Amino acid sequence: MADVIDIEDPADPRVAAFRDLKSADRRPDLPGRQGYVIAEGVVVVQRMLGSRFAPFGLLGVGRRYEELAGDLDGRDVPYYRASAEVMAEIVGFHLNRGVLAAARRPAEPELAEILASARTVAVLEGVNDHENIGSIFRNAAGLGADAVLFGDRCADPLYRRAVRVSMGHVLRVPFARLPTWPDSLELLRDKGFQIVALTPEPSATTLARALTGDRVALLLGAEGPGLTETAMAATDIRARIPMTPGTDSLNVATAAAMAFYERVRNS
Amino acid sequence: MADVIDIEDPADPRVAAFRDLKSADRRPDLPGRQGYVIAEGVVVVQRMLGSRFAPFGLLGVGRRYEELAGDLDGRDVPYYRASAEVMAEIVGFHLNRGVLAAARRPAEPELAEILASARTVAVLEGVNDHENIGSIFRNAAGLGADAVLFGDRCADPLYRRAVRVSMGHVLRVPFARLPTWPDSLELLRDKGFQIVALTPEPSATTLARALTGDRVALLLGAEGPGLTETAMAATDIRARIPMTPGTDSLNVATAAAMAFYERVRNS
Repeated sequence: MADVIDIEDPADPRVAAFRDLKSADRRPDLPGRQGYVIAEGVVVVQRMLGSRFAPFGLLGVGRRYEELAGDLDGRDVPYYRASAEVMAEIVGFHLNRGVLAAARRPAEPELAEILASARTVAVLEGVNDHENIGSIFRNAAGLGADAVLFGDRCADPLYRRAVRVSMGHVLRVPFARLPTWPDSLELLRDKGFQIVALTPEPSATTLARALTGDRVALLLGAEGPGLTETAMAATDIRARIPMTPGTDSLNVATAAAMAFYERVRNS
Repeated sequence: MADVIDIEDPADPRVAAFRDLKSADRRPDLPGRQGYVIAEGVVVVQRMLGSRFAPFGLLGVGRRYEELAGDLDGRDVPYYRASAEVMAEIVGFHLNRGVLAAARRPAEPELAEILASARTVAVLEGVNDHENIGSIFRNAAGLGADAVLFGDRCADPLYRRAVRVSMGHVLRVPFARLPTWPDSLELLRDKGFQIVALTPEPSATTLARALTGDRVALLLGAEGPGLTETAMAATDIRARIPMTPGTDSLNVATAAAMAFYERVRNS
């Protein structure tokens, strides 16, 4: 059973990991930052508990402890129990999900390990919006994509908002950073992945025809600029979603979902 | 050419339609509210200009006027030009898109007219989130769905945030409210539409098999509760997106996109 520790003083040093979250965790990947991974809300905390991100502490109201007691059974992790008001003072804003968990960043899994059994992976370039990254993980989890790989200029998938929007699936769907961009795509090709770029180009083949290979790596760029020419040049196939002329490209997470769906639509 | 009128006093009565947008347009559909439809940013304003929502006024900074001058050519509509600071005082917050247009609500098109040439329509029940509604319109426009119909308990599609998230496509993709719910589905069936409910039920048929009809009406419920039993009972087919067990249902706009995509994937 988790230890329940009542916190009445917002300045209590035991809850330092949860302090002033808006500014402290904005760029947790930068040197000097704490780099903690924060889960918010009962469902995401449950997913964190079932992931490789083992929390070292939770902060929440009493009612949320009761909802999580079963999940915390047998876990040696403190639950810092506070009123909603004290919690708001600690984190710096009112948090209506009522519970947080904090974990350290474990070592990232090896790319080779991630690729070993994968059939469908997303590879992102220049996707620097945390909500889009979170949504991509949520869609990957829901539609059975195996991993998300980060190329150049992407935002941190472990930032609090990305964790929340993903509904905790960034903690479960494997991801890795590609060491060099776009040269690392060669590593995927060596493993038998066909490299498919999503593009609005009308001359590209349809997703339906492009995604029939056994192993597929889907390259996705940010909304607006899309993939760089350098990345495009490193791909095997250019695929398009059939779009109505005169409309905008889809949101990148929606485009990813469409491609993930194409891979499982008959299952 | 639009008349350019310089506004220096934030209290100027000529810009009343743009005043205090955060509170004034929150529920524009309620009696006593102005009910104006507000477009934000150059692209959305351009889409409004090309829609049945003819703006009666624009408010923006000088640079945005220059970007829109071609679109406004031959239009008898005032452009209230203001500094970013005066604009912020009028609307009540800093607006980084720099231009707004306001239109009155025209009469809604007749359902029969909307259905006449439609092949794919979305029918929403209980979708009360403006962002989701906006995204559904954006996806409908991009993927060639013909209309969005509103059943019970949906949010106003013409609310400012829905207009913005849709990238202006709520102004272009036809929509209508169904007069009685779910009985009005009978009107669709009479026109030859097959009524397909999206559901997470594992026993349902796949989208790929369910959406082969010539005319399809896709019923979508809110995330979480999904469709009511009453609505489900009024449908012809129950269809599911193939989902990984243990994950959440997709966001409703993403689920809609998947279904719209299924209808055009070979085009």
